[in-house]
Amino acid sequence: MTQRDKSPEGSADRPAVVLVRPQMGENIGAAARAMFNFGLTELRLVAPRDGWPNAKAEAMAAGALEVVQAAEIYPSTKEALADFNYVIATTARGREVSKPVMTPGRTAQELHARHGAGSRTALLFGAEASGLENDDVALADVMVTIPANPAFSSLNLGQAVLLLAYEWMRAGDETAPVQLDRRGYVPAPRGDLTHLFDHLEATLTRSGFLRPPEKAPVMMRNIKAMLTRADFSDQEVRTLRGIITSLERLDVPKN
Amino acid sequence: MTQRDKSPEGSADRPAVVLVRPQMGENIGAAARAMFNFGLTELRLVAPRDGWPNAKAEAMAAGALEVVQAAEIYPSTKEALADFNYVIATTARGREVSKPVMTPGRTAQELHARHGAGSRTALLFGAEASGLENDDVALADVMVTIPANPAFSSLNLGQAVLLLAYEWMRAGDETAPVQLDRRGYVPAPRGDLTHLFDHLEATLTRSGFLRPPEKAPVMMRNIKAMLTRADFSDQEVRTLRGIITSLERLDVPKN
Repeated sequence: MTQRDKSPEGSADRPAVVLVRPQMGENIGAAARAMFNFGLTELRLVAPRDGWPNAKAEAMAAGALEVVQAAEIYPSTKEALADFNYVIATTARGREVSKPVMTPGRTAQELHARHGAGSRTALLFGAEASGLENDDVALADVMVTIPANPAFSSLNLGQAVLLLAYEWMRAGDETAPVQLDRRGYVPAPRGDLTHLFDHLEATLTRSGFLRPPEKAPVMMRNIKAMLTRADFSDQEVRTLRGIITSLERLDVPKN
Repeated sequence: MTQRDKSPEGSADRPAVVLVRPQMGENIGAAARAMFNFGLTELRLVAPRDGWPNAKAEAMAAGALEVVQAAEIYPSTKEALADFNYVIATTARGREVSKPVMTPGRTAQELHARHGAGSRTALLFGAEASGLENDDVALADVMVTIPANPAFSSLNLGQAVLLLAYEWMRAGDETAPVQLDRRGYVPAPRGDLTHLFDHLEATLTRSGFLRPPEKAPVMMRNIKAMLTRADFSDQEVRTLRGIITSLERLDVPKN
């Protein structure tokens, strides 16, 4: 039986996540959840501190329990990575290692390209407090750093896995964009729109447009949706209110 | 003192995060951490369930305590959003509302573009279990959905804030054109709009709005421009014509 056969079905076309010496079961479970949120299913653990299986990991995994239960345990990083063709090591900013450092977005594109060419890939994460050791990083092809606020860059293990798994799905999600024509004006503050809506609702209630009464909330919601979508400027909101006021005063003989 | 003056220094050039009826203090703290990880600092809370201040929120915030402590409390979503020019509502996939739905990446590009043009923007998040109500969504310009594994798409509040704040930072260097995903939405045929404009022009001429006569063409051109920009559907054009007809028939005593 090959390593490939042991993996969850269909997992070979997606990156595996390899956690090196993870400490808390909760974090393993959170990592599994984050993986599964974005379609990753193959989890490998190198020498988990508290042994395996781990009840806290299973409890935290919730709907991603199958990912935790299918996790494979390895005594060393070298063995855990043996059958991958391309490995990316996650690392904090500023580490001094002579390997290319990529953004998460670049990483995801690279992973898709590698899988398209038949490679198996892995994302390597270090222990909660200390991160990856240099000997672990040495086994990777490249490094990835998540850009963050220099004044507060600490992400926990589950968050780091979440962001990289998200980028994997994001890079696979290609939709045909529709161009929005942008103009250099500033939309009205929400308060102006609220006044417009209040004015319109009062007038339409009086005019009998919002009938039957039980449908009035849905009708107003639809009217608000269509008028909000237009990104009116504050001048344009004033124009609309002027129109409503003008129509209110229209002197039309009743039929 | 303006609203702007009350915000943390420098926060006006970045999106604010508005949490509507958040339940657990821990989740508010986690949201604050996620914000600060990617440089966001302005937090607003609409009617937090357990009141404010909240010790659990402060404990969870850790290094982002200043974000929690500067949070502003509002009784309603409407009031919390009053001074923003552009609001994006976060929502689960598949909601039926006639608003554009964007990816997080496009959302971030759009937010940068809006700030570049002088707007103030907000990201709107609903309560943990129930999400945003339709009346909250109605106040937003567009919606954003985080793409996730359809078999396991549940993200908690802190994770959703993390991913959108991350996208904000990620897009920081990009100047790509803004693109909007309209999801199968078809604008009305031009002819429907023409009939709407003819109807409106006739009515506004009668009501005296288009005065003086030599300015009428420019006034109508501006009105047409603003109403065309909204990309109304044919159903929405019918709604507008119904509104005009209803207002025409309004029986108002003359002053």
